[in-house]
Amino acid sequence: MRTHTEYLWFNASKRREYINITSQLDDILSASGINEGMMLVSAMHITAGVYVNDAESGIIGDIDEMLEDIAPFGKDYRHHRTGEDNGDAHLKSILVHHQVILPITNGAFDLGPWQQVYYAEFDGRRRKRVIIKVMGE
Amino acid sequence: MRTHTEYLWFNASKRREYINITSQLDDILSASGINEGMMLVSAMHITAGVYVNDAESGIIGDIDEMLEDIAPFGKDYRHHRTGEDNGDAHLKSILVHHQVILPITNGAFDLGPWQQVYYAEFDGRRRKRVIIKVMGE
Amino acid sequence: MRTHTEYLWFNASKRREYINITSQLDDILSASGINEGMMLVSAMHITAGVYVNDAESGIIGDIDEMLEDIAPFGKDYRHHRTGEDNGDAHLKSILVHHQVILPITNGAFDLGPWQQVYYAEFDGRRRKRVIIKVMGE
Repeated sequence: MRTHTEYLWFNASKRREYINITSQLDDILSASGINEGMMLVSAMHITAGVYVNDAESGIIGDIDEMLEDIAPFGKDYRHHRTGEDNGDAHLKSILVHHQVILPITNGAFDLGPWQQVYYAEFDGRRRKRVIIKVMGE
Repeated sequence: MRTHTEYLWFNASKRREYINITSQLDDILSASGINEGMMLVSAMHITAGVYVNDAESGIIGDIDEMLEDIAPFGKDYRHHRTGEDNGDAHLKSILVHHQVILPITNGAFDLGPWQQVYYAEFDGRRRKRVIIKVMGE
Repeated sequence: MRTHTEYLWFNASKRREYINITSQLDDILSASGINEGMMLVSAMHITAGVYVNDAESGIIGDIDEMLEDIAPFGKDYRHHRTGEDNGDAHLKSILVHHQVILPITNGAFDLGPWQQVYYAEFDGRRRKRVIIKVMGE
């Protein structure tokens, strides 16, 4: 069994941004040399998410609208009594989930035709990180 | 370390359907011969989910109602400008999550007494697939 | 490849409770002797969740309020026709997700500075269990 660990850094220019990281993950998979196993892709911050869905701008707008409907930015959250203004970003992270596992078969991601991996930034304009850990053989 | 990979195909007769796949996963676990490890169960489509919960028809109706309340079918989603009509299914997939990991101990799923694994179809009436990858020893 | 399996038991005094289990997981990681790999932390009940977020009481209150807004306790769920009163807890479990994977690097959790692991009890006042399975080398 082997493992291979890398980190991706982000510094989104906007507060919320949805970034397709599939090709970067492909490069990490190649570098790992692992043919059979799993890749964990996990946000290291509590105001970001990682999800698998469509690379289509309309659905990205729909996801953002759904999250804003449930946990709007600017609401008077209890969390803001600490001086923070990002309570919505924590809640969005919980809803979207902060990690996915990608199956690896024959040296490639074993994904469906439309599955793309997104980093969902909910509190940008600062440096943030995602861990990628590949495990297999 | 060994891996074992299989696929389950679905062709739901309705748009939305919740299918208990626990016994099929049990068969795959037996076929894998793996005694200690984890099984990844992951939808290969972006309009489906996989979750662990109760095999009780009432709660399945409640889950469906909750998802319809948040992301109703037939709403005018941005995604529909592409000609699609399944924006709700993408959003439901995000909310439910598209994958679970089942722990394996002594050759069996190490689950609680009421935990059953469901494939949640949100845009059926077409052939769709779930990947199952077992990893362990 | 090695695995190490433990269980944590809970008996929350309230119906809903959010319990920081990070230091207990740290102890399990030490006991496992695993340096590189992943730890699965997964609720064994269908009315509980496991998530990674902030150890800040305000945001915990915000998470609870969001879940109550979407799936309130006391609503007349279909599930209650079985005699149960915990339909909300099932739905909250679906929304929060019942499991996380923690990456392990150099014998420690490879988490961001604010990431803490929580057991989210949605139907307490009874004994409930979480499985922890470490896999790696």
